Amino acid sequence: MEKISRTKIVDLLKRRDFGAMVNVKGWVRTRRGSKQVNFIALNDGSTINNVQIVVDLANFDEEMLKQITTGACISVNGELTESIGSGQAAEVQARGIEVLGTCDNTYPLQKKGHTMEFLREIAHLRPRTNTFGAVFRIRHNMAIAIHKFFHERGFFYFHTPIITASDCEGAGQMFQVTTKNLYDLKKDENGAIIYDDDFFGKQASLTVSGQLEGELAATALGAIYTFGPTFRAENSNTPRHLAEFWMIEPEVAFNDITDNMDLAEDFIKYCVQWALDNCYDDVKFLNDMFDKGLIERLQGVLKEEFVRLPYTEGIKILEEAVVKGHKFEFPVYWGVDLASEHERYLVEEHFKRPVILTDYPKEIKAFYMKQNEDGKTVRAMDVLFPKIGEIIGGSEREADYDKLMTRIQELGIPMKDMWWYLDTRKFGSCPHSGFGLGFERLLLFVTGMTNIRDVIPFPRTPRNAEF
Amino acid sequence: MEKISRTKIVDLLKRRDFGAMVNVKGWVRTRRGSKQVNFIALNDGSTINNVQIVVDLANFDEEMLKQITTGACISVNGELTESIGSGQAAEVQARGIEVLGTCDNTYPLQKKGHTMEFLREIAHLRPRTNTFGAVFRIRHNMAIAIHKFFHERGFFYFHTPIITASDCEGAGQMFQVTTKNLYDLKKDENGAIIYDDDFFGKQASLTVSGQLEGELAATALGAIYTFGPTFRAENSNTPRHLAEFWMIEPEVAFNDITDNMDLAEDFIKYCVQWALDNCYDDVKFLNDMFDKGLIERLQGVLKEEFVRLPYTEGIKILEEAVVKGHKFEFPVYWGVDLASEHERYLVEEHFKRPVILTDYPKEIKAFYMKQNEDGKTVRAMDVLFPKIGEIIGGSEREADYDKLMTRIQELGIPMKDMWWYLDTRKFGSCPHSGFGLGFERLLLFVTGMTNIRDVIPFPRTPRNAEF
Repeated sequence: MEKISRTKIVDLLKRRDFGAMVNVKGWVRTRRGSKQVNFIALNDGSTINNVQIVVDLANFDEEMLKQITTGACISVNGELTESIGSGQAAEVQARGIEVLGTCDNTYPLQKKGHTMEFLREIAHLRPRTNTFGAVFRIRHNMAIAIHKFFHERGFFYFHTPIITASDCEGAGQMFQVTTKNLYDLKKDENGAIIYDDDFFGKQASLTVSGQLEGELAATALGAIYTFGPTFRAENSNTPRHLAEFWMIEPEVAFNDITDNMDLAEDFIKYCVQWALDNCYDDVKFLNDMFDKGLIERLQGVLKEEFVRLPYTEGIKILEEAVVKGHKFEFPVYWGVDLASEHERYLVEEHFKRPVILTDYPKEIKAFYMKQNEDGKTVRAMDVLFPKIGEIIGGSEREADYDKLMTRIQELGIPMKDMWWYLDTRKFGSCPHSGFGLGFERLLLFVTGMTNIRDVIPFPRTPRNAEF
Repeated sequence: MEKISRTKIVDLLKRRDFGAMVNVKGWVRTRRGSKQVNFIALNDGSTINNVQIVVDLANFDEEMLKQITTGACISVNGELTESIGSGQAAEVQARGIEVLGTCDNTYPLQKKGHTMEFLREIAHLRPRTNTFGAVFRIRHNMAIAIHKFFHERGFFYFHTPIITASDCEGAGQMFQVTTKNLYDLKKDENGAIIYDDDFFGKQASLTVSGQLEGELAATALGAIYTFGPTFRAENSNTPRHLAEFWMIEPEVAFNDITDNMDLAEDFIKYCVQWALDNCYDDVKFLNDMFDKGLIERLQGVLKEEFVRLPYTEGIKILEEAVVKGHKFEFPVYWGVDLASEHERYLVEEHFKRPVILTDYPKEIKAFYMKQNEDGKTVRAMDVLFPKIGEIIGGSEREADYDKLMTRIQELGIPMKDMWWYLDTRKFGSCPHSGFGLGFERLLLFVTGMTNIRDVIPFPRTPRNAEF
């Protein structure tokens, strides 16, 4: 077959130079037709759209044609022509076809209509489906939007460590990382395992958050963000939990809680706008196939200012709802850590738009949050979203060395893990703020998927680390 | 003090609207002057350049002024004025100063001229130095360049898993990841530890490479790249090794070895060009302070086509050098895995430019590389750089199911770890190629730093997981 340089299908479908000879390569989605003419729907992953290959059977070898089955990989030379019936403006009249890889009838994706559960079992092949192609192209685009947003605003991408020897944020159970020979664990005279011969010379784990190290960077470089994997060893088998997930954590020197809220709102609107502007075909597909309200929900978030409301006011609204007869599963009172049903009531029923809840009771928030003058609350902010609940959690940080130290002591956090963090408050302390966004939470919102295992290529959950 | 919205120093130094009232915030680098006037060099991390704050002492409280020591954090309102002596075009005549955070004389960065070794011990503070500010701003910019390069070319960023239950690439020793209680390890009747109750229900480790999963994605989405942390539990205490480092691994369907070389050369030139275009101040600082040949070396890489040479030809050149009297520490013969001295001889002495070495003996390369017709070599490609040695390693992949299977069996790789990888060759196999770039190797080249621990914020090495 003559060598013609390949055109990606995403580019080919935009071309209007009908009559040109082109080459496309990809995987066969379907093949149908008559005894004279066949139509091959070909996809190469560059777009959700297939290009139609028109094959005049008389011109091709019968044995070769038999190999063009669903899933087979082919290279096609042909003439770019205007299309009438394919749903796209352009199609290809085949002049030469080469089968690069055959695909027999044991191919699990031959038939359509597989359940999401089945597709999770073949996570190594599911990127070849329309649904997961769309999801992972959107995932890519959201990552690009995030880097672009921060880079354009002068933030520096900062890699906080994955393996850590400190366990101070207490955000969840941790995975231990070790090179010790578990068949020959040395112990000291008290029966404690000796870690001196472990790789790091001490007990080590996988990080649950890069925030504390992010604060080190923000108080040097001014404005930074992390974007990396984080880990929670919680035995939670739910559609909302992953043991390995990606987090984005911006941290900004000189930002107060209001700047932090502005940043969070701008940031998430930028991401949603990017999805609509750059992944419309994929979003539309997911909207039409899975979640008819998706595009409307995305546009809804862009249209309105987020509500900004102190926790105390939020509790009042919830208490009034109870008085008026609304039934919640969990009790509502000042001091309670809000359940998802409470957050969603505020967002979906009361305000009907995203809500940033601020100034939470200090007892239910982390030690590093800036204490308010009332002695009871801290400058926390959670961004609550329709269908998702909490999508962002953040705060202004306590910049006062003595207040922070007192809180650390109250909570009994070991100083061996804290001295370096405290140094930021000791040497040229400054007001600063930041937040964390779970990348997969954002993707649930933007794709309309309902199970978090379906927005990450290879989900890690209890009893599952396949592929 | 009047509230004026803050200008970052990187932006302030570009302004020419002298007379405007501005606010800057940052950390004091130095303070000097006479009894009448002081000059504060202020840095906020946005640039390596300081802004000079001119303080007429008569206008300020003496007690406040005493707090303006090296490392202190201050907010300054003042008039933007043209500067004569500060080395910058603009400076600020202070009208109001607020001390946000004091810094006493225990601050470790008070004096200049610390060794790199000492700065590694205070890695939590070293981003506040000129050197590490420059390195980490360049690190950010290289990450942005990488995403931009691939995004513009239609590649999708793909997150391969960090925790893995397979160990097939054999690229190095692995860290075990576990939630097991090491004080109560259950064993079966043969004395083998039972992993059924571990988090993932089996033994798990940290990934050494995302390539195999990347191939799954490339054979679905067409062109992908990974950019994530990878881990090697090797007890190597050298300036070249990290236990935790970041890798970029593009993988492209339908690319052959020549396309792969083109991609690698374009990619690395794009990154180097980006550094010169977008981080010139930082690169220049490192050039002047540490490595006078840095900028010349960066420009050198851009100027010339990389040499493309089969391994067999490379061996001939090395053998001729030996005949002519060149002494190598390690022997040279066909089949040897080249040592760094061999690679650097080819690059630095023989060709005097980067070299892409191809078609290595199959015995010294990984099982997945495409076998050449000679039965002896594989379509590997290593990009060799001055001062660095191997900066990129890649190959065209074996697309033929039977050949790949035979190689897997020859090497005794367990099929339980391989079935999903083999499915890519079973169902619609296609030619494809890819490579891996160690991010910190690239940074060594672009920053001129000589120890890899100085181009990552918090290095993880044997016996070191601080911060």
